[in-house]
Amino acid sequence: MNVGIIGSGQLGRMLIMEGRKLPFNYYICDAEMGPAARISDGYFPVERYREFVDKCDVVTFEFEHVDERPLLYAEEQGKLLPGMNAIELKRSRSREKRFFTNFHLPTAPYVISNFEELNKALDSFDHSVLKKSSGGYDGKGIWFADRPHLPEHLPPDEYVVEEKVDFDYEASIIACRGIDGEIQCHAPSFNLNKSGILIYNSAPCADAGMKEIAVKLLESLDYVGVMGIEFFVKDGKAMINEFAPRVHNTGHHTLHGSSISQFEHHIRAITGLPLSDARLLEPSGIVNILGIELSAEMLNSILKLGGTHIYWYGKEVRHRRKVGHVNVNATTEGELSYKIEEVMNLLYSSNVEAFL
Amino acid sequence: MNVGIIGSGQLGRMLIMEGRKLPFNYYICDAEMGPAARISDGYFPVERYREFVDKCDVVTFEFEHVDERPLLYAEEQGKLLPGMNAIELKRSRSREKRFFTNFHLPTAPYVISNFEELNKALDSFDHSVLKKSSGGYDGKGIWFADRPHLPEHLPPDEYVVEEKVDFDYEASIIACRGIDGEIQCHAPSFNLNKSGILIYNSAPCADAGMKEIAVKLLESLDYVGVMGIEFFVKDGKAMINEFAPRVHNTGHHTLHGSSISQFEHHIRAITGLPLSDARLLEPSGIVNILGIELSAEMLNSILKLGGTHIYWYGKEVRHRRKVGHVNVNATTEGELSYKIEEVMNLLYSSNVEAFL
Repeated sequence: MNVGIIGSGQLGRMLIMEGRKLPFNYYICDAEMGPAARISDGYFPVERYREFVDKCDVVTFEFEHVDERPLLYAEEQGKLLPGMNAIELKRSRSREKRFFTNFHLPTAPYVISNFEELNKALDSFDHSVLKKSSGGYDGKGIWFADRPHLPEHLPPDEYVVEEKVDFDYEASIIACRGIDGEIQCHAPSFNLNKSGILIYNSAPCADAGMKEIAVKLLESLDYVGVMGIEFFVKDGKAMINEFAPRVHNTGHHTLHGSSISQFEHHIRAITGLPLSDARLLEPSGIVNILGIELSAEMLNSILKLGGTHIYWYGKEVRHRRKVGHVNVNATTEGELSYKIEEVMNLLYSSNVEAFL
Repeated sequence: MNVGIIGSGQLGRMLIMEGRKLPFNYYICDAEMGPAARISDGYFPVERYREFVDKCDVVTFEFEHVDERPLLYAEEQGKLLPGMNAIELKRSRSREKRFFTNFHLPTAPYVISNFEELNKALDSFDHSVLKKSSGGYDGKGIWFADRPHLPEHLPPDEYVVEEKVDFDYEASIIACRGIDGEIQCHAPSFNLNKSGILIYNSAPCADAGMKEIAVKLLESLDYVGVMGIEFFVKDGKAMINEFAPRVHNTGHHTLHGSSISQFEHHIRAITGLPLSDARLLEPSGIVNILGIELSAEMLNSILKLGGTHIYWYGKEVRHRRKVGHVNVNATTEGELSYKIEEVMNLLYSSNVEAFL
């Protein structure tokens, strides 16, 4: 079977790495030949998207904000998994929010406003998050505002005005749904985000209703594949922040210390293979490597901690860019916290803010 | 860093799969472009062995019985790990046996005999195993004999005449030694061999002195990298059957349910990186796929068991040939035994002998 992946970044690369055990070939389609293309069975520049889709039996994507042509053509050929319905929700934040409401999925209170009435909409909450409806992702197109001061220089668009949640912590769940409808949820993780970027995460973490929400969301979309769902948790209850219709940075801890990785799970789901029970075998987490070259000394010190694995993505190092990550495993949650702190010190000398 | 691997089979392939996380490139040198070459960063036909060695910072091998030219040239350049001293023991069964004796490593009683005096040597034991000293590996060049009947048509050579051990079971250990001398041993496994081929194995298994022997053997050879050591166990005591100076079929269970795989461990060792603590996180085993095409139905049924992973090597299917394996994990040893039996039934319909 030929599996097509749209996008050539680290997520596509790890899909191939983890999919190599299965009797499939992997092809990449993207504007440029990134880390995934270099270990694939063939690379197609995006202009050759028809040839790419025609060659593949199933087509998936490592990122939802990509050139629409291969996505639409693959959907038209009945080969795209997950389908366009999930991607379309990510094209418009107002549509995504309305979807959550329609399916009774808990999310932060919000109003949707056109550009002209933003001032009025801002009255709804003391502290708001303004989210530009289109073209926004990964912390882009987001402004914070306190009543009654509307930020200056907002680009014209429809906006989601959301009540700023004073959450206790952020968490996420990696869920996978097979073609036959079977759903497997990996253990939820606690996530530390700063400036819209994941710094580290760790599992296990209290469920707080996440699994139930995940099952509902995947079923509502008749979804096939892995989805990453991010939550705010307050007073022990989870509400959806956003979801990603793909393998997710907060699921990299499943590469070690879990019974199956999110990447293998995704490949199994979209190729119609049975899922596996997603068990966490021991406390597991990751630390992202952001915008720094990995020196031989750093590599050595991190691996010397024991129970650590380093994934280097082979990307050009740029400020704030995710260029790798460290998997951290431990026999107890206390030991995991300690090791994550050690890795943070080795990478960022206790000052990660300087790298954001 | 450029890592060179001599040999293009499944062991080389899994070394690359597991080594992809690290910031290294992988090159293959072999007579033909096998499964490893197809996922490598570059393939060198064996005639271009000098170019291959010159390109790489370190050179290893997935199999010890390969063309000597790249091995010797890499050793000459100070790039071969593990070194020729371990390979040379494998070139001569009599030298290997004498080495065990010299270093007080327990092994089956034996005499070494030239071809002319074989009749006399056969008198040493009631039941003997005759092992042709050169050119033998993997159950090749071995004959069983009961006193006083020497088998006919033996090829002329020096022979090791070994007492046939009436062992309780066979077992093995995967040990890894770093450049700094640190040694990590993976949990020993119980192995079921038939007609000289591994059928399945499972871990954990009682140590029976294996770890101590492994440490002694690796230190005696100033060895760097992973070694697989096979044992006979009788009355709770292990004696060495043979060792392989490389990653080993009985270590594939470390791919799932262990804190680190034998393949990543080997890459770390030969590149001078720290080893990791080799912990078994849950009962783990494998079943070899021997000489059969993997049907979609078989793939589905095996994965449906849960806690299973299939590795397909992408080799031409031939009688008795190892063309893939199934990793099996379980929460208890009893469940592991049950699942291994299920996989055996699905692959061989309870009659593995018909496939040997």
